[in-house]
Amino acid sequence: MKLQFLGTGSGMPSKQRNVSGLAIDLPKVTWLIDCGEGTQHQMLYTKTKPRKVTAVWVTHLHGDHVFGLPGFLSTRSALDGTDTVTVYGPKGLKKWLEATFRITGSHLGYELNVVEFTDGDTFEQDGHLVTVRKLEHRFPSYGFRINGPEKPGTLCVDRVRALGIPSGPIYKTIKEEERFEYEGKWYDSKEYVTEPIPGKVVAILGDTTPCENARILAEGADLLVHEATFMENEQALARKYGHSTTREATALAKACSVGKLIVTHISARYVGREEEFEREVVSDFPSSLVATDFLEYTVGD
Amino acid sequence: MKLQFLGTGSGMPSKQRNVSGLAIDLPKVTWLIDCGEGTQHQMLYTKTKPRKVTAVWVTHLHGDHVFGLPGFLSTRSALDGTDTVTVYGPKGLKKWLEATFRITGSHLGYELNVVEFTDGDTFEQDGHLVTVRKLEHRFPSYGFRINGPEKPGTLCVDRVRALGIPSGPIYKTIKEEERFEYEGKWYDSKEYVTEPIPGKVVAILGDTTPCENARILAEGADLLVHEATFMENEQALARKYGHSTTREATALAKACSVGKLIVTHISARYVGREEEFEREVVSDFPSSLVATDFLEYTVGD
Repeated sequence: MKLQFLGTGSGMPSKQRNVSGLAIDLPKVTWLIDCGEGTQHQMLYTKTKPRKVTAVWVTHLHGDHVFGLPGFLSTRSALDGTDTVTVYGPKGLKKWLEATFRITGSHLGYELNVVEFTDGDTFEQDGHLVTVRKLEHRFPSYGFRINGPEKPGTLCVDRVRALGIPSGPIYKTIKEEERFEYEGKWYDSKEYVTEPIPGKVVAILGDTTPCENARILAEGADLLVHEATFMENEQALARKYGHSTTREATALAKACSVGKLIVTHISARYVGREEEFEREVVSDFPSSLVATDFLEYTVGD
Repeated sequence: MKLQFLGTGSGMPSKQRNVSGLAIDLPKVTWLIDCGEGTQHQMLYTKTKPRKVTAVWVTHLHGDHVFGLPGFLSTRSALDGTDTVTVYGPKGLKKWLEATFRITGSHLGYELNVVEFTDGDTFEQDGHLVTVRKLEHRFPSYGFRINGPEKPGTLCVDRVRALGIPSGPIYKTIKEEERFEYEGKWYDSKEYVTEPIPGKVVAILGDTTPCENARILAEGADLLVHEATFMENEQALARKYGHSTTREATALAKACSVGKLIVTHISARYVGREEEFEREVVSDFPSSLVATDFLEYTVGD
């Protein structure tokens, strides 16, 4: 999974950061997580192709996370996107998109599915398993735990050769089938292949204050994408607006032993104080990055 | 009236042109004409202040003209805009904005009036008179004729002095009142003041094919802002999509003897062919400009 941040600010766009939007390239398709206003404009400066997007996952319906969605979906149609798009989001999304397209006379040249989720739902999409959990915010907000597909184990070549089997198409059979036959004798494949390799796990959380569901989503993830709207000394403001601080994001990353933390959704008040902000994050959890617009980060292959 | 184009493309944003948006600075306030997605982003690179915007005039509800409106109105609130905003637009606008704000939990810190107009309506706003006429498009689309306020005539100082009146506060009275008294005798002011100076007229048309109402709106205007989505050799496409060509815009400008024509809403197919496009416009109506994003043009003082 290759992530590219298209917007990393909070509330409103600035010259430095657009509002929320994140593209995830899977092997054959692209997903979006949130689609704030101007997400399609940001894409113009990346390799992301609207027609390759098959799913959009909406963390919550605040404007800075969704106001770019009607425009993106319309542009995808104008650019000859024909594959079905599924938009997953909280209750209300379907009604809003329907009203928007009806009133603005917008017609899409592809099928649009809108799936409204609730806490605990799981979805299979493009070979990935996505678990949805509700977070704690002023407005219903959700996070996603994305499990990449398990990969088959590798062949134990030494053991196979010890049976006298030369390399050839049978090696593929041994990796893919439960049993295999060689010179009239049947063998149990799992003795000759390592355990399957679990898929990578990426947890991406919408706006939230610290909560138990955030911990459940992030536990042991290879990558956690977490908001850090405020620095530690503005915790009161973070509480007031239902957000997290830098140190609350790093505390979760530590508690869940994640492989990497990327913080995003950063208030415009920190323009010019980027080093100070980054120091507060990295000093507490060294395997961290502060997202900037267009940052790319790859998990797994 | 100082116009600044914030988006001059059609349909979808490109690196060269954003979708439709136009700011008009009046002496004390700013208006917007249309507010496509990313209009607020464009404003970040101009002197336009969201809190100074008191009115938004929406030509029609196609997405490339309105998808930036919820975000702009929200940002204006976040930036402490407190004055009332009136959004004028076609039927459906009020329902869409209400649904959008309700479903996305958006709250504005100022009063928002939504006025749905119909063909022939006139409105007084910020001392200007705006006439609305319905145009011809695939979707209900309108144009505006904006009449700036009449200015009082100038004092005929020689004639006043001939009465023996020295300069003083009475000069102001003569300009502003119908009659004035000097040394016990009453005079008719209009004998001593030139005719009032008519306000400047700016006609701004939404997406349209040539039609009679376009002519009515543009007649004798100091400035006509007209779409030219296509060049002359794509007239069939222009008809198919309810748009105009360069030469249809210039033909209207000539027929209506406008002072200046600015064409906008230009298809992305002409990227790299700007000179050819401009030549087709200017050769037919020399007092023309092809709008580019951030172009400024002032009418009157």
